[in-house]
Amino acid sequence: MKYKAIKLVKRPNLTITPDVFETVTLETQDLADGEILLMQTHMSLDPAMRGWMSADRGSYIPPVELGDVMRSSGVAEVVESRNENFAVGDRVVGMIGWTEYAVSKGQGLTKLPPNVSAEAVLCVLSLPGLTAWQGLMEIGKPKAGETLVVSGAAGSVGSMVGQLGKAEGMTVVGTAGADDKCAWLVDELGFDHAINYKSADLEKRIREATPNGVDIYFENTGGPVQHITFGRMNAHGRIVVCGMIADYNTDKPSPGPNWINIIRKRLTITGFTMPDHWDRVPEMMQKLAAYLAAGKLKYRAHKLQGLESAIDGINLLFTGGNTGKLMVEL
Amino acid sequence: MKYKAIKLVKRPNLTITPDVFETVTLETQDLADGEILLMQTHMSLDPAMRGWMSADRGSYIPPVELGDVMRSSGVAEVVESRNENFAVGDRVVGMIGWTEYAVSKGQGLTKLPPNVSAEAVLCVLSLPGLTAWQGLMEIGKPKAGETLVVSGAAGSVGSMVGQLGKAEGMTVVGTAGADDKCAWLVDELGFDHAINYKSADLEKRIREATPNGVDIYFENTGGPVQHITFGRMNAHGRIVVCGMIADYNTDKPSPGPNWINIIRKRLTITGFTMPDHWDRVPEMMQKLAAYLAAGKLKYRAHKLQGLESAIDGINLLFTGGNTGKLMVEL
Repeated sequence: MKYKAIKLVKRPNLTITPDVFETVTLETQDLADGEILLMQTHMSLDPAMRGWMSADRGSYIPPVELGDVMRSSGVAEVVESRNENFAVGDRVVGMIGWTEYAVSKGQGLTKLPPNVSAEAVLCVLSLPGLTAWQGLMEIGKPKAGETLVVSGAAGSVGSMVGQLGKAEGMTVVGTAGADDKCAWLVDELGFDHAINYKSADLEKRIREATPNGVDIYFENTGGPVQHITFGRMNAHGRIVVCGMIADYNTDKPSPGPNWINIIRKRLTITGFTMPDHWDRVPEMMQKLAAYLAAGKLKYRAHKLQGLESAIDGINLLFTGGNTGKLMVEL
Repeated sequence: MKYKAIKLVKRPNLTITPDVFETVTLETQDLADGEILLMQTHMSLDPAMRGWMSADRGSYIPPVELGDVMRSSGVAEVVESRNENFAVGDRVVGMIGWTEYAVSKGQGLTKLPPNVSAEAVLCVLSLPGLTAWQGLMEIGKPKAGETLVVSGAAGSVGSMVGQLGKAEGMTVVGTAGADDKCAWLVDELGFDHAINYKSADLEKRIREATPNGVDIYFENTGGPVQHITFGRMNAHGRIVVCGMIADYNTDKPSPGPNWINIIRKRLTITGFTMPDHWDRVPEMMQKLAAYLAAGKLKYRAHKLQGLESAIDGINLLFTGGNTGKLMVEL
């Protein structure tokens, strides 16, 4: 059976242009012992992909080799199996890549319960939810009554971070790049405040939303929100650095704040990436699933249609054009 | 008996000018029950004083009130006692202030063993040594074979940090502002490399001195060493932010590095000040005393003579004019 896949054939410069990808038509082969054939139904697009595409940036996991199928996580259905651990009809989540079909030996795949949708899996029970959990709960260590500021709050990670913060009893302030996103954060997700970072009076608005200062800053973006929030950190504040989306597509990264406040307020700033914490994924997924079942974690999927929609669609992550967790429905 | 003391009467602007101090002549009174009279012999001058003198900087301990004797630590001899815990002739270390004599109830004073000099106490067994221990050992968590870069390495804290790093089996690189200081670090203290931060080829020299990257950066200064070393951090590197002496006396703090590297290398940056850790001082002093007795911690005192020498002398800390731990012999 013929199917399409998309390979990475060039390293992107600053922006991701279509010519870095090549769509190829492949054909499934007979399975060997232990193999399964996966039909991907939902493919996740995540900001981390920008790093995976670059050879020269000293990133935290090896880059995608040129000529390889582009790396991504996704939800798939098992359509053939020569592996006793997987039956035809099982649904799995894992690193499947930009492809309609894939052959796997089952390594790194997690079987999904029947009652959870593919959207919920990609929005909550995979990279975004796990990243939010690791960063906020394990590194930030929130306490009830504290104030959390999360930048990129309408993004796939940020929206989970804010909701986890609310579930922990924090005052939660989010920043996002559009008024409708801000309305969604407050009206649907229960954030205490949401601020459009393009506001002319951004500093004043952040100050007014955080009268007791900031205890945890969850950083997804960089930019002016970083500088303003850094200046409002309370003593013993924690800054969790998860993303710097404003700087991914530039060769002139903007300066960070002066470090004096790190001493004055005895701040801890911690960078992390999920691949350092894969061993704890099963435990974290269980915890997230409980929050999801309790209705504490709402999500919004932004679905593109068809494999090749990923080629242009990935840039929505960097222009802020997506409304909700970006994914491709196959 | 008449004695001199120096009060803080104005807040300094950028630099500390003599008019912010006022020398007064006071007279000792009869002691009340529980009090002791201290004759200070050695008074410590430390960069942290700059913060204590400022009302408006949100510092970590309350500022010195205008009209109060300037705050400082020092070594003193008990010359009268109506407190059963202290005998005439006992030597103590504690926050005594800019004064020749002081009355105390003994709170916050630590008695000194007879075989340790006042210089050793102020160089090792008080703020500099304790700060170095807390920052490097408790926060940085050094491992043998790792590389440590310490800025302000010839300073009172930096010189202890580097020697503790060597004692832990690290490769130690220090930066300082003069060639003779660099020679002292390598020849006397056993640093592996010392680099004058005023070198035209600073980046190249730091790179060559750290061929395996940097695992711990102990920050005392800010400035170009910060930016260069930040770019050389290894994965899971630790940055301990203890001082930013380049920025204390300016109202235009220089920008810090962009935060992308914090994610890429999963760095942890921690600011700290000793007052958060006073409860552990007795334990840390014991550990430091053992290193001192074993000859692993050498020190150099820069002694000014007479109480009023502090007024101009304190600025040596910010111009880099001191050679060794700055103190006033009374």
